Amino acid sequence: MKHTISVLVENHSGVLSRISGLFSRRGFNIESLAVGPTHDPSVSRITIVADGDEHTVEQIEKQLNKLIEVIKVKTFAKDEFLAREAMIVKLSVSAAKRSEVMTIAEITGAKVMDMTLSTMTLELCDTYANLCRFEEVIEPYGIVEMVRTGTIAIEKGSEVLNPKK
Amino acid sequence: MKHTISVLVENHSGVLSRISGLFSRRGFNIESLAVGPTHDPSVSRITIVADGDEHTVEQIEKQLNKLIEVIKVKTFAKDEFLAREAMIVKLSVSAAKRSEVMTIAEITGAKVMDMTLSTMTLELCDTYANLCRFEEVIEPYGIVEMVRTGTIAIEKGSEVLNPKK
Repeated sequence: MKHTISVLVENHSGVLSRISGLFSRRGFNIESLAVGPTHDPSVSRITIVADGDEHTVEQIEKQLNKLIEVIKVKTFAKDEFLAREAMIVKLSVSAAKRSEVMTIAEITGAKVMDMTLSTMTLELCDTYANLCRFEEVIEPYGIVEMVRTGTIAIEKGSEVLNPKK
Repeated sequence: MKHTISVLVENHSGVLSRISGLFSRRGFNIESLAVGPTHDPSVSRITIVADGDEHTVEQIEKQLNKLIEVIKVKTFAKDEFLAREAMIVKLSVSAAKRSEVMTIAEITGAKVMDMTLSTMTLELCDTYANLCRFEEVIEPYGIVEMVRTGTIAIEKGSEVLNPKK
């Protein structure tokens, strides 16, 4: 089962290394990890998507809470959060196929960033599952390069993950 | 000066920890780091935005290339790449201010993901600079929570960052 975990950490240079080291040492299976700034310059936020049972997630939370730079750990309840990730993909597309790719872009909400005689570069920001479906649809056109951020997530509703609380 | 570096790595559990450890040990100043899958399941792609002079970037490249899991390192030339990152932001917004926030969303291309009586949650996928400007504009409405992915980047044109080459 997939779990999405938000971690607020002090914005120190070694913290990402310590957290990713913890995961690899303990053999936790990370599907994605995204790190970025928050509204508070002293605090960074890491979103981790990990695979495992309830026990594994408890272990992950416990280990994270032991790290001195970790301010707060929150595992989101299923269906109670909103998630996104970004993807840029370069396709090998001849002139004859361009309008087909444009139709896919229109349907999926992808945007064309760049084109050449033989390629088109598209961006899409959506859920992990939707990005996977998009990849499936464009695959036949020839993906020559792909880059994705990890997933970021926020709780639905007015609840706030606050470092002070 | 800011540099954007793409690193293709073998998809092993310890590689992120080794790369982020290298940066913190050497005191390289990372602005953002994003890691995600590529079209090849055995290869992950890490995008690093780092601050420093030409000499620093050469050192970073050299150190990265020493790591056994690193397949390819490429520092993008200025203006020769396309970059994006995603942001989700929760604002404290009363009913009276909702239409103002909607106008900002329309102008900037942000999408409303969720709302409650007292909050609105928006997503935006754009360049780092545009996300910073967006943050400035919504700041007065009260940012209660913000999460961002790191930057991802791809070369303009038909050039491909290929692990095989």
